[in-house]
Amino acid sequence: MSDASPRNLKLTIEYDGSRYLGWQVQPQGATIQGVIEDAIERVTGERRRINGSGRTDAGVHAFGQVANVRVRTRIPTDRLAGALNANLPDDVVVLAVEDVPWAFHARYDATAKTYEYVVETRRTRPVVGRGRVHHHPAALDVDAMRAAATALVGQHDFRSFATVDPVRAGRSAVRTLFEAGVERDGTRVRFRFTADGFLYNMVRALVGTLLEIGVGRRPADDVARVLAACDRRVAGPNAPARGLTLVRVEYAPDAPPGCA
Amino acid sequence: MSDASPRNLKLTIEYDGSRYLGWQVQPQGATIQGVIEDAIERVTGERRRINGSGRTDAGVHAFGQVANVRVRTRIPTDRLAGALNANLPDDVVVLAVEDVPWAFHARYDATAKTYEYVVETRRTRPVVGRGRVHHHPAALDVDAMRAAATALVGQHDFRSFATVDPVRAGRSAVRTLFEAGVERDGTRVRFRFTADGFLYNMVRALVGTLLEIGVGRRPADDVARVLAACDRRVAGPNAPARGLTLVRVEYAPDAPPGCA
Repeated sequence: MSDASPRNLKLTIEYDGSRYLGWQVQPQGATIQGVIEDAIERVTGERRRINGSGRTDAGVHAFGQVANVRVRTRIPTDRLAGALNANLPDDVVVLAVEDVPWAFHARYDATAKTYEYVVETRRTRPVVGRGRVHHHPAALDVDAMRAAATALVGQHDFRSFATVDPVRAGRSAVRTLFEAGVERDGTRVRFRFTADGFLYNMVRALVGTLLEIGVGRRPADDVARVLAACDRRVAGPNAPARGLTLVRVEYAPDAPPGCA
Repeated sequence: MSDASPRNLKLTIEYDGSRYLGWQVQPQGATIQGVIEDAIERVTGERRRINGSGRTDAGVHAFGQVANVRVRTRIPTDRLAGALNANLPDDVVVLAVEDVPWAFHARYDATAKTYEYVVETRRTRPVVGRGRVHHHPAALDVDAMRAAATALVGQHDFRSFATVDPVRAGRSAVRTLFEAGVERDGTRVRFRFTADGFLYNMVRALVGTLLEIGVGRRPADDVARVLAACDRRVAGPNAPARGLTLVRVEYAPDAPPGCA
């Protein structure tokens, strides 16, 4: 690579979203995107916009958010993560930096995402790890929730689970849910969803609906009716942001050089 | 129970110790014992000293610390936890309150304690859950550490692993380690110790020594030499407090009524 050639960097990022207004830069306060753009500027001298794989809301966390940024810095790739991390607060860290093809885009090229949602079901409020769990003190029927989650797997129009209807903006609400798991872990319950993409607030609406099934307020087979309604009002409420973590974003392997 | 009879209450307590000076009341700042005594006073009107099963240092956490307190309040037992929790900060919670015999003492009657210590070994600093892990970026030989930990199980004079030598104060340094486990969990390593009691800073000195074995600075069979030396200087350094959590305190079942 010649001096100061343009480069496209893929960043894999972990964060505790508790004290942020979310991913996307906001004039009102600190965001994950903002602190990363600040760190890039301090390290490279370049003010650049980074592209996240998607926005996460205020209070949502990530083990493996992905973003890309186009820069000209000559700092070797293996030194960039350390340099950025020295300029990031203790609740945001860059796990990996990779040079990727110029055309790579973290949002448009993502092929799958996995989210986890954690619920604390005991009566007493959670303390250790409290920023990452939703307190929902109730006996939950995990088998019923798992049956309902399994019924959601596959390709569906998920607009009943979207805060903003993408169809009104001329976009599709069809997504493919590859996996939907529900596991008990002591007094906590962990939900896990992998899809080719998620609508706005979709995981939180899925969890809010499954929790209503878990407490017996809806039958387990209600999700078919909710999907068919194509109406957000038919699903349950959005579960709170703090229980949600973006676990992983996946991309197709690079095409071999010279292939279309 | 007649009105305002004296009662002895056993409290089981979870806390995130990050912002405390430790368990024991200190003039310099907030402690776990202090905020619980304040909550008891607000709920019952009685200012009482509570007996913890043992002190935890600044930054150490607990899933199941135990304390007892003698009070006269007539508040029903099943309402006390809720009332106390409404008066505790969000990083301390009472999981259970039980009426126990007048003679029960959380420290003197404890028959076993279990501690967990968590190490993050990846190069990048930990973010999610960072208050509960010690960052030790190194390749660790878990098998060597497990062999060394297993060699520590049994009844030994552990003064080589105590910051304060109890023998100088006329007390025994002999403890029985029932279990010592080392498990890999992704890029983290979890140590777990159960003993009839622990000397001051003993778990942190055990972990500090095992980590030196894990990186190859000591052979796995070095722990026999360290135990035999009866000298704190021969063991490794104390691992930092933040990685340590008191998991459980155990007590003998109540003696049947009328038995000695």
